[in-house]
Amino acid sequence: MQPKSIVLTKNDIPRKWYNILADIKMNPPLGPDGNPISPDMLAPVFPMNLIEQEVSTERWIDIPEPVLDVLSIWRPAPLTRASAFEKALGTPAKIYFKNEGMSPPGSHKPNTAVPQAYYNKMFGIENITTETGAGQWGSALSFACAQYGLTCKVFMVRISFDQKPYRKAMMQTWGGECIASPSSETKAGRDALEKDPNTPGSLGIAISEAVEAAVGDTSGKTRYSLGSVLNHVMLHQSIIGLEAKKQFEIAGDYPDIVIGCAGGGSNFAGLAFPYVLDKINGRDIEIYPVEPKACPTMTRAPFAYDHGDTAGYTPLLPMHSLGHNFVPAPIHAGGLRYHGMAPTVSQLINEGLLAPKSVGQMDAYKAGILWARTEGFIPAPETTSAIAQVVVEAEKAKAEGKEKTIVFTFSGHGLLDLGAYEKYFAGELSDFTLEDAEIEESTEILKNYPKPQEMKSR
Amino acid sequence: MQPKSIVLTKNDIPRKWYNILADIKMNPPLGPDGNPISPDMLAPVFPMNLIEQEVSTERWIDIPEPVLDVLSIWRPAPLTRASAFEKALGTPAKIYFKNEGMSPPGSHKPNTAVPQAYYNKMFGIENITTETGAGQWGSALSFACAQYGLTCKVFMVRISFDQKPYRKAMMQTWGGECIASPSSETKAGRDALEKDPNTPGSLGIAISEAVEAAVGDTSGKTRYSLGSVLNHVMLHQSIIGLEAKKQFEIAGDYPDIVIGCAGGGSNFAGLAFPYVLDKINGRDIEIYPVEPKACPTMTRAPFAYDHGDTAGYTPLLPMHSLGHNFVPAPIHAGGLRYHGMAPTVSQLINEGLLAPKSVGQMDAYKAGILWARTEGFIPAPETTSAIAQVVVEAEKAKAEGKEKTIVFTFSGHGLLDLGAYEKYFAGELSDFTLEDAEIEESTEILKNYPKPQEMKSR
Repeated sequence: MQPKSIVLTKNDIPRKWYNILADIKMNPPLGPDGNPISPDMLAPVFPMNLIEQEVSTERWIDIPEPVLDVLSIWRPAPLTRASAFEKALGTPAKIYFKNEGMSPPGSHKPNTAVPQAYYNKMFGIENITTETGAGQWGSALSFACAQYGLTCKVFMVRISFDQKPYRKAMMQTWGGECIASPSSETKAGRDALEKDPNTPGSLGIAISEAVEAAVGDTSGKTRYSLGSVLNHVMLHQSIIGLEAKKQFEIAGDYPDIVIGCAGGGSNFAGLAFPYVLDKINGRDIEIYPVEPKACPTMTRAPFAYDHGDTAGYTPLLPMHSLGHNFVPAPIHAGGLRYHGMAPTVSQLINEGLLAPKSVGQMDAYKAGILWARTEGFIPAPETTSAIAQVVVEAEKAKAEGKEKTIVFTFSGHGLLDLGAYEKYFAGELSDFTLEDAEIEESTEILKNYPKPQEMKSR
Repeated sequence: MQPKSIVLTKNDIPRKWYNILADIKMNPPLGPDGNPISPDMLAPVFPMNLIEQEVSTERWIDIPEPVLDVLSIWRPAPLTRASAFEKALGTPAKIYFKNEGMSPPGSHKPNTAVPQAYYNKMFGIENITTETGAGQWGSALSFACAQYGLTCKVFMVRISFDQKPYRKAMMQTWGGECIASPSSETKAGRDALEKDPNTPGSLGIAISEAVEAAVGDTSGKTRYSLGSVLNHVMLHQSIIGLEAKKQFEIAGDYPDIVIGCAGGGSNFAGLAFPYVLDKINGRDIEIYPVEPKACPTMTRAPFAYDHGDTAGYTPLLPMHSLGHNFVPAPIHAGGLRYHGMAPTVSQLINEGLLAPKSVGQMDAYKAGILWARTEGFIPAPETTSAIAQVVVEAEKAKAEGKEKTIVFTFSGHGLLDLGAYEKYFAGELSDFTLEDAEIEESTEILKNYPKPQEMKSR
């Protein structure tokens, strides 16, 4: 029998993260006054050890032993050959996937939730606050906080809170507290409720509530945590690609094409950044972040300074952005409905090291269902976008008669998103496209901010 | 770092199943006339190659290569040391779990769904029918049928069908057809609907519908499939224990106590039967099947001939049974709400090779939540019963100051059962106990059937 997966032993988990900041130049984040912010300005929000990671330019950073202990609950994640999917497509391409759906919360998110909880604990923090949209991040952080005995308070966008009661139960099972946002616990929440008592909420309001709840705790024992976009999140996720490289070595193969879906950018960066390093060093490799056509941050939005949140409380970050007031169409890949893109991913696009792609929702579900019927695992809605791009590349390889090697991150399973599949089968889903005028309108606000410099790292 | 899991490579998947029928004597199943049934009487229901497995007394049976190919999507399953759970309990016991929650449908069920679909395919069958209660089995069989290009029709008990729409979506994603039972597609269904158009349905009616739909297809291309109780199901599940034995060899350890929850008996048998063989050969080892106090088949019900289904369509099987009209309390471990117990498990209890235990629902959830907060994976409601017994044994080891080695099957994750956890946190769950008089009443019907012989295999 041909082994299907390349399985590493627990002792093969990488011992260091890869930090892309060692290899690219970046525009700095700006404060409200338009000047670069200093690390201590972030101290009320994040613990200093994580702020140091956020700005570090060391190429390799040690993964602490107690973090490895918890990661080893599900890591190393298998790298698996999707031979049944290949056969169904009739492609000469070899398709591999890195399965991040095996973690307890079912996605790649705990790769950073665990170290973030650990560093908070080490800094003497006892409580973490965060926001969550569809619920993946709030679940992962609740799981991680349980491991280190921290409390976890999650502000969940009310419409998702009401639609997905299972997510609340999941967080509660791990000891997390999940509150519908806007809530009456914060000023930001009370203001929003006063304006509209029946508001469905938004990620922007939820971020404001979580930050306020952290900063407002005068005991100094509470901090805020973010699940994507920031540099230290990309750092923690690099374990995905570092493992994959070891596994490809065992398989005696190396990818021609690396693919990942990208909302804030973290699961994509996790697999891709270690390969970006190879590309910088001259390796011939294509690297594609994939976004939904309904939220085309990378493929159609300008590179600009913008806030990370809708309310405009965060520093200005240099990124491809549709403008922080942009409200994407209600596609089911909730994790890809973000107006911006991680500054690191954005910079790599500018440097021509990444070639972003976009796919439609219907193609994504079609690809996801073919995947489930061949490879078994039901993908999360976000993951189906990556799979749709894999189909495009596999068909190209077929047309060209080339045996290309493709790898992508299976970022999570869809077992808590089956409602979306139900709607697909009931014919209730559709594609969404954006007019140029809509993008012009939503990015108008970016003209108020300083312009980031065009940087070339080499 | 101490490795947490013992990970086998794909090439270490066992190549043969273990058949307990080689090592114990059994009472035969009886037909409507009270005489032992012959294999050909089952031919309209099951394909002949599976019937041959059902009655085989060969000790080792080859696993076909195409079955291994599909099992290798998630097998070998990790054997993991639950060190964080041990620490939380403060026990000197070493606790290991065999994680069967990593399969695409999230439970041990595909271990038999895959070979059953394969043997049907080999026999020229094109369509499989089955019933499902909570949905685990219908999901697993839909997944397996997709792998071999068979259609799968699942009659799902209406109340579960309505309460758990995600299960239908899951089956649909794998190409399965999920129908609320009773349906108008069969005579059994129409009769039930005529009696009560608003009936919530029952597993008994659903089995009748599935059998009727298979037998009634005059093309001869349709058969029925059962997910537990029968001998060939126990055979297919033995892969769990055979893998675990290889892993314990690598760990340089051997269990003192083997534990599994038991509804129909298949996940328990899967881990336990290979260890029963060791026990028969003189090894000192305790083996505990665990059931809910609300459905005490093994601990309080007589050994008798009874039907496998409520409607009484199946042959009479020799088993511990509460009587086929018994309706257990509405505990959330739906997979453990079965009136009987696999004939093989029942016979091993009679021979003193197994020592059954029972646990209450509240203790089970309490144990399951401690598990989630330490080991991360949220257990299925059924699995929490096994964990509750692990807690009992770990505390006993602590009281006795003994470093015992305990292993149990983590039979599945609870990501589609989070509603039950929600109810637990809302204080809406409770324990159920049965009066002796209730058991006397429900087992009254067993007096109408022949008595099985008391058999001792050695």
